[in-house]
Amino acid sequence: MAYFNNIGKVEYEGSKSTNPYAFKFYNPTEVVAGKTMEEHLRFAMAYWHTLTAGGSDPFGADTAVRPWGHYSGMDLAKARVEAGFEFMEKLNLPYFCFHDVDIAPEGSSLREFYSNIDTIVDSIEEHMKSTGKKLLWNTANMFTNPRFMHGAGTTCNADVYAHAAAQIKKGLEVGKRLGAENYVFWGGREGYETLLNTDMALELDNLARLFHMAVDYAKEIGFDAQFLIEPKPKEPTKHQYDFDAATTIAFLQKYGLDKHFKLNLEANHATLAGHTFEHELRVARINGMLGSLDANQGDMLIGWDTDEFPVNIYDATLTLYEVLMNGGLGRGGVNFDAKVRRPSFEPEDLFLAHIAGMDTYAKGLKVAAKLIEDRVFEDFIEKRYSSFKEGIGADVVAGKATLASLAEYALNNDSPRKNESGRQEMLKAILNQYILAN
Amino acid sequence: MAYFNNIGKVEYEGSKSTNPYAFKFYNPTEVVAGKTMEEHLRFAMAYWHTLTAGGSDPFGADTAVRPWGHYSGMDLAKARVEAGFEFMEKLNLPYFCFHDVDIAPEGSSLREFYSNIDTIVDSIEEHMKSTGKKLLWNTANMFTNPRFMHGAGTTCNADVYAHAAAQIKKGLEVGKRLGAENYVFWGGREGYETLLNTDMALELDNLARLFHMAVDYAKEIGFDAQFLIEPKPKEPTKHQYDFDAATTIAFLQKYGLDKHFKLNLEANHATLAGHTFEHELRVARINGMLGSLDANQGDMLIGWDTDEFPVNIYDATLTLYEVLMNGGLGRGGVNFDAKVRRPSFEPEDLFLAHIAGMDTYAKGLKVAAKLIEDRVFEDFIEKRYSSFKEGIGADVVAGKATLASLAEYALNNDSPRKNESGRQEMLKAILNQYILAN
Amino acid sequence: MAYFNNIGKVEYEGSKSTNPYAFKFYNPTEVVAGKTMEEHLRFAMAYWHTLTAGGSDPFGADTAVRPWGHYSGMDLAKARVEAGFEFMEKLNLPYFCFHDVDIAPEGSSLREFYSNIDTIVDSIEEHMKSTGKKLLWNTANMFTNPRFMHGAGTTCNADVYAHAAAQIKKGLEVGKRLGAENYVFWGGREGYETLLNTDMALELDNLARLFHMAVDYAKEIGFDAQFLIEPKPKEPTKHQYDFDAATTIAFLQKYGLDKHFKLNLEANHATLAGHTFEHELRVARINGMLGSLDANQGDMLIGWDTDEFPVNIYDATLTLYEVLMNGGLGRGGVNFDAKVRRPSFEPEDLFLAHIAGMDTYAKGLKVAAKLIEDRVFEDFIEKRYSSFKEGIGADVVAGKATLASLAEYALNNDSPRKNESGRQEMLKAILNQYILAN
Amino acid sequence: MAYFNNIGKVEYEGSKSTNPYAFKFYNPTEVVAGKTMEEHLRFAMAYWHTLTAGGSDPFGADTAVRPWGHYSGMDLAKARVEAGFEFMEKLNLPYFCFHDVDIAPEGSSLREFYSNIDTIVDSIEEHMKSTGKKLLWNTANMFTNPRFMHGAGTTCNADVYAHAAAQIKKGLEVGKRLGAENYVFWGGREGYETLLNTDMALELDNLARLFHMAVDYAKEIGFDAQFLIEPKPKEPTKHQYDFDAATTIAFLQKYGLDKHFKLNLEANHATLAGHTFEHELRVARINGMLGSLDANQGDMLIGWDTDEFPVNIYDATLTLYEVLMNGGLGRGGVNFDAKVRRPSFEPEDLFLAHIAGMDTYAKGLKVAAKLIEDRVFEDFIEKRYSSFKEGIGADVVAGKATLASLAEYALNNDSPRKNESGRQEMLKAILNQYILAN
Repeated sequence: MAYFNNIGKVEYEGSKSTNPYAFKFYNPTEVVAGKTMEEHLRFAMAYWHTLTAGGSDPFGADTAVRPWGHYSGMDLAKARVEAGFEFMEKLNLPYFCFHDVDIAPEGSSLREFYSNIDTIVDSIEEHMKSTGKKLLWNTANMFTNPRFMHGAGTTCNADVYAHAAAQIKKGLEVGKRLGAENYVFWGGREGYETLLNTDMALELDNLARLFHMAVDYAKEIGFDAQFLIEPKPKEPTKHQYDFDAATTIAFLQKYGLDKHFKLNLEANHATLAGHTFEHELRVARINGMLGSLDANQGDMLIGWDTDEFPVNIYDATLTLYEVLMNGGLGRGGVNFDAKVRRPSFEPEDLFLAHIAGMDTYAKGLKVAAKLIEDRVFEDFIEKRYSSFKEGIGADVVAGKATLASLAEYALNNDSPRKNESGRQEMLKAILNQYILAN
Repeated sequence: MAYFNNIGKVEYEGSKSTNPYAFKFYNPTEVVAGKTMEEHLRFAMAYWHTLTAGGSDPFGADTAVRPWGHYSGMDLAKARVEAGFEFMEKLNLPYFCFHDVDIAPEGSSLREFYSNIDTIVDSIEEHMKSTGKKLLWNTANMFTNPRFMHGAGTTCNADVYAHAAAQIKKGLEVGKRLGAENYVFWGGREGYETLLNTDMALELDNLARLFHMAVDYAKEIGFDAQFLIEPKPKEPTKHQYDFDAATTIAFLQKYGLDKHFKLNLEANHATLAGHTFEHELRVARINGMLGSLDANQGDMLIGWDTDEFPVNIYDATLTLYEVLMNGGLGRGGVNFDAKVRRPSFEPEDLFLAHIAGMDTYAKGLKVAAKLIEDRVFEDFIEKRYSSFKEGIGADVVAGKATLASLAEYALNNDSPRKNESGRQEMLKAILNQYILAN
Repeated sequence: MAYFNNIGKVEYEGSKSTNPYAFKFYNPTEVVAGKTMEEHLRFAMAYWHTLTAGGSDPFGADTAVRPWGHYSGMDLAKARVEAGFEFMEKLNLPYFCFHDVDIAPEGSSLREFYSNIDTIVDSIEEHMKSTGKKLLWNTANMFTNPRFMHGAGTTCNADVYAHAAAQIKKGLEVGKRLGAENYVFWGGREGYETLLNTDMALELDNLARLFHMAVDYAKEIGFDAQFLIEPKPKEPTKHQYDFDAATTIAFLQKYGLDKHFKLNLEANHATLAGHTFEHELRVARINGMLGSLDANQGDMLIGWDTDEFPVNIYDATLTLYEVLMNGGLGRGGVNFDAKVRRPSFEPEDLFLAHIAGMDTYAKGLKVAAKLIEDRVFEDFIEKRYSSFKEGIGADVVAGKATLASLAEYALNNDSPRKNESGRQEMLKAILNQYILAN
Repeated sequence: MAYFNNIGKVEYEGSKSTNPYAFKFYNPTEVVAGKTMEEHLRFAMAYWHTLTAGGSDPFGADTAVRPWGHYSGMDLAKARVEAGFEFMEKLNLPYFCFHDVDIAPEGSSLREFYSNIDTIVDSIEEHMKSTGKKLLWNTANMFTNPRFMHGAGTTCNADVYAHAAAQIKKGLEVGKRLGAENYVFWGGREGYETLLNTDMALELDNLARLFHMAVDYAKEIGFDAQFLIEPKPKEPTKHQYDFDAATTIAFLQKYGLDKHFKLNLEANHATLAGHTFEHELRVARINGMLGSLDANQGDMLIGWDTDEFPVNIYDATLTLYEVLMNGGLGRGGVNFDAKVRRPSFEPEDLFLAHIAGMDTYAKGLKVAAKLIEDRVFEDFIEKRYSSFKEGIGADVVAGKATLASLAEYALNNDSPRKNESGRQEMLKAILNQYILAN
């Protein structure tokens, strides 16, 4: 059966189209910088936002009208699989992502949960085979159930920790079975509410132990997905341990986990942490840690995770710029961890919102590729730092300089090289021109 | 000569005193948790805020009336030394801290700057001998001079980099000569304004190179001070590399510098980065990185570094709590990196503000010591995490658990240990009681 | 029956008590500044947080264990009434507040909702008679139900507007019947998500029309409660019209409603709007608009409404300072619009949290009263502005000055009155001394 | 003489031009929505940022290289006039704006300041005649001089108040003489640092008195400029009275000043207050208060006023959308209250930055005009609120409805009008399409 009968397959119609259900910029087969748009962007549907969520917020009940909303229990879970694959087909989304609890009800015991998962995974596997859709990543939800109120890998309750481990074990097995390209850890409750009752040192040690166990188990079962940690500074927990890219890297380094993990970076999490998304991407990139993207955007005047669909062309351009400079996303992709606004409650809005996001990223890709092709920023930067290519600067880079040699140089340097303007305003005008005139 | 003729030595008069120029809580010789208050707190005067600054802000000119304000050039520099030691004497401040440019004018060349520094350091040395005051730390100001507009250790101009190195070299020599207990690096311009013109990878590599050179040179000259990095997320630079404690630790680990550096943490920088001060202290503490404190407070409704004198008893208590749990500050201390408000422009305000800060920290110390003595939080925490002391929890901590063993346990665990309330509200009420009823 | 069997009546035991279920500072019969603490503070229980809410957050399910949790439908509604009055009795809370949907299920029609409300109001009325508890205020919840997704008084759907009006009508009737001292309007959905689809002018006109209708209907039925608007800048709506006190006053003035309304101010809403709570109270006070308080506190590092129990003694002191300077709260009171943290899920936490809040406000009241009695700030302020009591300053205040007369004065004023320090640091130290040494 | 010899007149070269010193989008004579771009935009140079400021920040000294930088005193003031008019000529800026202290040194007395102003105004007047440039607005700087540390119209020092009045008097006279189209009040120090020493009621009363005097004096001398207040929430003062548009309107209404003032709105001030710029514009527009614009942009991750040149096409489009819906700016204009970044210290950057801003606004104007021409949002909004055009909705708008009539309607309304999606995501995609594909 079909859940979105009134909506056909969304096609590329070009930038002048007035059809709201058409792509204006996303043309999957168009080649940009040597690859098709589809190969670059590797778009994924987020199971939770698209199929599971209902539009509630802390002050309001669910609003979403969903054609599968009349089902419940396992029937609902099965209907979501069908609806999800129909949705991916119609939107030309090659990948999807899910938490364990998104796809199957937890039931009354862990055993029942395992069983429910198995049943639904059977169905997902069949749909994957028949449609060619792929699993970008899966993960375990260890934050919604009340048992995780004090954390999962950082809980004070060892039995809860064991339960979390059991979910991860199953998640890795499911990932292997479905050929997931990545496996994600987002520590929604891995943090603290108040230091007055918290043993931070033990909690972080335990979290590292759990990650080591996951690495070991994946190896044991031959699941070779890329492992990803997704930083977020706060919410739901007051303070989360994986605050941002740098904090997460510090943790991975300390516990000898940096060879086993990369980062799944989310735009809205970046801004909540006080960074631009491109900052987080750059930090990950220069540390060899850029794994995958959760595409969305926050509202900069709002202090919580709004998970809006990405429609800002500046952010998209600078995001894809980092991706291209990284040599692409590798096994990662662009997951729309984004939700329609609560008053956008109709099924059509799911399509309109994804189209908005996909078009924005597509246009951003094209602008970024052109900027790189023309070496707009690269040439400027190369010239700007050229003093480190020769003389005393080259000595510094080569590790031959000392404080004494540099001081000697400075003391005897009667005409030091003048600073030159950083020309930010000009560079931003050029960026605008590339966005607006191409 | 004396600059503060109308103000006598500030003495402890107890909590009921109505004399604004008396300590109400700071009694230097009072023993708390086995040491005198003076030994615990190691208060330091910040040369720049107290002796050099004039009260200007981005929208207003200097307002400060300073008894040495009629001097200029080297005469002004010398007058500041005299005024500073008088100030420390009258306020019973055992330590001080300075940047190179605070104590001596830069003159027209690096050579002249070196010479000016030498002259003033002579005077400081004499005053130290005659008064017993000590240098908590010194540092090089590599952010005010226009040459550092693009950074110092992260500049794009190799000649500027050399100049920075020359300042650090001199700083280390001065520190050695004056017996500084620490040497500080705050990267005021080590960051970027826009990624569009920035080679972040090269900049960070160069910064690490400079730190290695500093470590080497200190060793070479036998200067054994504790090296400290002071994180700050932004301001003046849009985005600074040493964003917070965790980011700085990641940097130090990556470049093999973590054995050579600890952190100088500042309250206002913590909150600008989205953390409480106690968070930053805890992160540093559990990483063995808690070096020294810049005591002040920000205004949580204001997005820039206000450097207010610390008057919040909650912050002071939780700060000293971390310090005591750390076994004290070691070679570090409590530097008042705090400035009187622009309309508090009279010399008297310098005293009143330091008294406010010292009293707040003294009271915080007493409350923290009592909390620890009574094991208020420790007992609660010990019980809270007790499931990791036995059974499956102990296995986890001992590294004996695997995902498989934990899943097995969870599957067969019919009555998992129930969660218990975190009791935050009760703990906060007890904290209030300790503050208000002691 | 009793729902809190294991907890007895909470009594005042003094500041040294180690009994967590005792008041340390709140002594209802103690006289402060001429009235008992109970008369000053007029504490109220918030029905929603205490009896209705379950501890969910956007990333987690309900956690709360409530002794009435096994009921449903009208049985649940009735159990909540019983539990609520038991709770108020045991905590010595004289007042309560509710939204219509807190007390009774909406059922399947407006008619059924009215009927359910009537049934529960019967029960509440009986309990009020037998216990002497009073209704501080009631209100209509016009934000949770999906119908209000686009607003209530500012909806784009006239039928929804009519439904909102019907809820308010019933609310006013219930208020009258139960002798409510106030009636509150909080515009949770009165705002917008994006200006792209919003007719702000029409929405505000319609909102004003609804308020006028409410004023008229209250008059018609002889309900003489104080009408209150509660400002909040955002959440759930991206931008709410009643952003803060000043914005709300502008709205009331524009539509001729300022004689009919005062403000119900909430601490956490103030800080979300970029103000201290005392700022909002001061603005309301000097405009004759200080109506009632929603007592809680936010987390200044978190950008959403956390509604924490108020435990900050500075905030409590400055809040009660404004209240005392206002001549008290009149018909208003102190409503604990505060919720236990999600991991504080046990029934005991409801008691411990209210005790924390009540004690903090009680101590704040005592400190504020002492500050006023000693004229600590008043004397300083009187002297500070004394130049407006004489000469040219008095002319200004009397309306006798002109630009020409003032310019003439300034041009011929050879020794203008010198500015004096604002002495903030000293004043804050004195505030600390009043808090910590009394 | 010429100060910008190496830069010629900036001309329109179209969107593909690679000349950084050409306009890509701003074509002054191009007709958009019935008027030329020049008539719509009325661009103005801000004297202070372009001619007076030097690039210092709280942590760094001046960096700006300015061809007139070797002058001092009145010679400097005269050179700035010459440079300013050359700059306006070369950039095709028809207007300028200044504070009194921008154009002339204060000297050692008010009398000398008046005299210096007169001298420079002579020069400005001549240049205006010879070039046709016009004064958009002038104002008095009552925040930089130390005398205003406690405020100007809200000072506690009556003699300072008189001095402020004298500056305003002169400012009005200068405005009249130069034919200023507007006169602006920005209350940089009109606010408070702490309520502990502040009489907010007296301060606001005094401020209103000063405004009334200004209105009276302008009338007296026949200066018929539009009076404008510029809101800002904070900085330099911790809390400024004119927090935002709504707060300012409340103040104007309360003191009977709303007929005499409109608002000068600034983008960066809007975001510091927690609003988008378009929000502030909308609030002003529907209150008939939209006067003039200070064009710039803030950095949303930074908590102070960065006054960056506006380069965001979304903001520019939505800004111009409000302007067009307002029927234009009337006597107001678009003043670039924006400064080059500190490392953009070369004279060329002044040109490049203005070009960036002017092009962004020009493109925004074109996009906004097209959106309005196509009724993209208007048609959607008209349909969305159509239920208020008929039946019960029309009764509401006509003032015929009561709570009773609406409740009656709701009770008997068996099939209430269903809500429809707000379609935010689609509308944002369309906005993107208008920006990117036109």
